[in-house]
Amino acid sequence: MLAAAAQLRLSVGDLAGNRAAARRAIQEAAQAGAKLIVLPELAASGYVFMDKAEAGALSEELTGPTVTQWTHLAEALDMVIVGGLAERGAAGALYNTAVIVDRTGLRASYRKAHLWDLEKEIFIAGDAPAPVIETGIGRIAVMVCYDLEFPEWVRPVALGGADILCVPTNWPLAPRPEGERPGEVVRAQAAGSTNRLYVIAADRCGIERGVEWTGGSVIIDPDGFPIAGPISADDPVLLLAEIDVAQARRKSIGERNHVLGDRRTDLY
Amino acid sequence: MLAAAAQLRLSVGDLAGNRAAARRAIQEAAQAGAKLIVLPELAASGYVFMDKAEAGALSEELTGPTVTQWTHLAEALDMVIVGGLAERGAAGALYNTAVIVDRTGLRASYRKAHLWDLEKEIFIAGDAPAPVIETGIGRIAVMVCYDLEFPEWVRPVALGGADILCVPTNWPLAPRPEGERPGEVVRAQAAGSTNRLYVIAADRCGIERGVEWTGGSVIIDPDGFPIAGPISADDPVLLLAEIDVAQARRKSIGERNHVLGDRRTDLY
Repeated sequence: MLAAAAQLRLSVGDLAGNRAAARRAIQEAAQAGAKLIVLPELAASGYVFMDKAEAGALSEELTGPTVTQWTHLAEALDMVIVGGLAERGAAGALYNTAVIVDRTGLRASYRKAHLWDLEKEIFIAGDAPAPVIETGIGRIAVMVCYDLEFPEWVRPVALGGADILCVPTNWPLAPRPEGERPGEVVRAQAAGSTNRLYVIAADRCGIERGVEWTGGSVIIDPDGFPIAGPISADDPVLLLAEIDVAQARRKSIGERNHVLGDRRTDLY
Repeated sequence: MLAAAAQLRLSVGDLAGNRAAARRAIQEAAQAGAKLIVLPELAASGYVFMDKAEAGALSEELTGPTVTQWTHLAEALDMVIVGGLAERGAAGALYNTAVIVDRTGLRASYRKAHLWDLEKEIFIAGDAPAPVIETGIGRIAVMVCYDLEFPEWVRPVALGGADILCVPTNWPLAPRPEGERPGEVVRAQAAGSTNRLYVIAADRCGIERGVEWTGGSVIIDPDGFPIAGPISADDPVLLLAEIDVAQARRKSIGERNHVLGDRRTDLY
């Protein structure tokens, strides 16, 4: 099964342009034969809001145009699509949300539980676990960006049987020593290998209102090694990699070890 | 403060030779000005036991020659020494143990809680948390090898205030893609950065009864980047790096984030 991560150059406020960029990536992935695509965090709105009012104006309901577009594309192309949007909930509450859609429609929505920086001024943090959804191509989980940095949040996803953890992200570029991978990629690798599941992170590229993105999109296998990316480059790119969910269901290491079974649940 | 990781070539059963190799590394580190040294797992006995009887014959009490040697050296050289040995406990029970000694003597012993492969046939798993010890050079924690792969085991050490997590290891060489770091090193980097503490792993090199070691000794800073090693080479090496415990005590990222404070303790 071929899977894709779409690293996009988006522009805050350009809802139509951003949706078009996502549509093109989805269509390109479908043409390449991918059955799953992961889009960035807040893929419709962009990320660097001036304030809560602007985020509100760029938010939409889950019945709105972004999820509707993805649902139509998922049905037409028989794909699973995972991506992020600014969700407007009850009484105008805003959430940094990601959804899983497949040919049957919206399968799950998830509200980011660990908010980054100014998100704390704009969004309400979610308080529901990351969902694990049985689809025609395997069990798909989703969480958003900074969520992935909390191993306590990833472990339940593995225990819930996830084969592929999809992570829409907007990783702001941080300094790192020459030759080093972005820390976010390293932590994604560890999340993959300590749970023996695939991790697909779709990041942004370009600069938005002075914030430069890492461009660290990556597809990681259950051994924790990248099988596509990271290119860490300032270019849109569609990463493609073969996924074998059977690999993610083998949690054993050798004859006597098991990444989940070896947890000392008597101690923690 | 200068810290060292001693990657040693040891030989199972050669207690005198192994203790001499450790002593030489400790003395070399002291001459270089190091105030802390980490030695490998099971540094006195070697690792690849034929059976439990052999491990028992190579085990010793915490009052035995290995800890006594380290205690004498720690006092004479005013160093903190962390290393592993096969501990013989009550009624002949065997533990894969690591100790922290300083100029005042044995400060803590810790029994590996997550056993790897054939260790399950030989050792009893510990059931006490990894200790965090206040020393003259900072707060030092210790755990052993595979323990580090369980984020649930590392987090309490950070919450306990550890500045430096010392990890005696024997990492058996596993296949990895060309150009990739060993997975154990990647997971150690993630353990460091998700908790913003230093991680010092001292590994083995060489081959012991057909088991090849990774030679992945590494010193990692609170950003999760190596500041010494990994050399991933089949040679003994003394890694040295400057440690600034103040860095490990800054758990904030920017103005609004904090690697410990951002945990959703209402949810997990």
